[in-house]
Amino acid sequence: MQLFYGQVEGDRVVLSEDESKHAIRVLRKKSGDILSVIDGHGGLYTGPIVEEHQKHCAIQIDEHVENWGEVPYDFHLAIAPTKNMDRLEWLLEKSVEIGISRISPILCEHSERKVFKPERLERILLSGVKQSLKGKIPQLDPLVKFNDFIGQSRSYPTYIGYCGEGTKTPLIDQMRTNGSSVCVMIGPEGDFSPEEFQNALAAGITGITLGDQRLRTETAALAAVHTAHIATLL
Amino acid sequence: MQLFYGQVEGDRVVLSEDESKHAIRVLRKKSGDILSVIDGHGGLYTGPIVEEHQKHCAIQIDEHVENWGEVPYDFHLAIAPTKNMDRLEWLLEKSVEIGISRISPILCEHSERKVFKPERLERILLSGVKQSLKGKIPQLDPLVKFNDFIGQSRSYPTYIGYCGEGTKTPLIDQMRTNGSSVCVMIGPEGDFSPEEFQNALAAGITGITLGDQRLRTETAALAAVHTAHIATLL
Repeated sequence: MQLFYGQVEGDRVVLSEDESKHAIRVLRKKSGDILSVIDGHGGLYTGPIVEEHQKHCAIQIDEHVENWGEVPYDFHLAIAPTKNMDRLEWLLEKSVEIGISRISPILCEHSERKVFKPERLERILLSGVKQSLKGKIPQLDPLVKFNDFIGQSRSYPTYIGYCGEGTKTPLIDQMRTNGSSVCVMIGPEGDFSPEEFQNALAAGITGITLGDQRLRTETAALAAVHTAHIATLL
Repeated sequence: MQLFYGQVEGDRVVLSEDESKHAIRVLRKKSGDILSVIDGHGGLYTGPIVEEHQKHCAIQIDEHVENWGEVPYDFHLAIAPTKNMDRLEWLLEKSVEIGISRISPILCEHSERKVFKPERLERILLSGVKQSLKGKIPQLDPLVKFNDFIGQSRSYPTYIGYCGEGTKTPLIDQMRTNGSSVCVMIGPEGDFSPEEFQNALAAGITGITLGDQRLRTETAALAAVHTAHIATLL
């Protein structure tokens, strides 16, 4: 099943410029050809092309499904962007496949990457959503400082993965008790600092462990994302 | 902790040529400097450099630990190599971090990649082992045809992930009942063929599912590897 991305305008869905070009110029779609289009908010729209235009291709809405391909929980990942952006891009692709609703890049004491450009990651999120047949594009937040992030209010339990000393419980146990709708914080290559961990605990965030293995930042993050999925199967 | 790779020769451990060059020429290690060296079979050896040579650097064995950094189960992954080798390389790096003991590349009806060169993957396995502080390098088998593989005898239960029609149980349920020491088969981009799936069942292999999400080959494989890890925490 091939998906396109666009926005509803009245009784039609208009594809974005990139998607219009792909549909009309690359795939040679014609007026009357049936397309399936997601709006990025959970809506799936199906219908024939009524405007065969390579910059603003539009379909008529014959069918409309809400919450299409929805993951049955909200997973919010707060992560210090990796020094190597490829690793973060890979993580987002995989996280979308397994199921993630929001990503908050955080700036930590040991962060090696202090600037963060979202454009490319937004493209990866969209292609991941289309590839894994989901209707909703995860929310990608701007980079925020660790202490500002832990001070924000959240509607789900928040957990912090930390390799250093401290009280921690396995994430899978927390999720079996409290559900898979969570926020999980994963630190940079050098981990969170002891002070950051203590600040998180003081802010009511719970320390968790993903097991004894030494995992890279992006591997730990994907393990957390997948743990939420497993917890829903138990 | 920095690890090197070498082989025991009498009362010394001699680093491989690459590792000797890295230690002596790149890192400028000198006679008397203490190195930690893994033999790739679970052994960790620590001692001072007694031969400062950039092709066959050797240490004296002061300390020796067996089964160092051992994962408490054997995970054998049988996978159709992805069309894009980067994806397979990524998978192996991550699998080593989480824990894997053996990889069997399999040639399937829908395989897009029919040739398979192990050299680069072996380097990735070694660097993954060193990065994640393990002593044992996973075994990488030569490419084998699907029907030959299912005919081989294995000491652990064998499972096959399949997205098509058929009786399947969640892998996590199987592992909670039968343990994490398993062989899991993951198909190519086009999945296993219905005939391959039936042949596997006829060979006593159990059909499993990793959930409802549509996962890429390498994502499904890593999900299976991580499921084994989670099962040991439950």
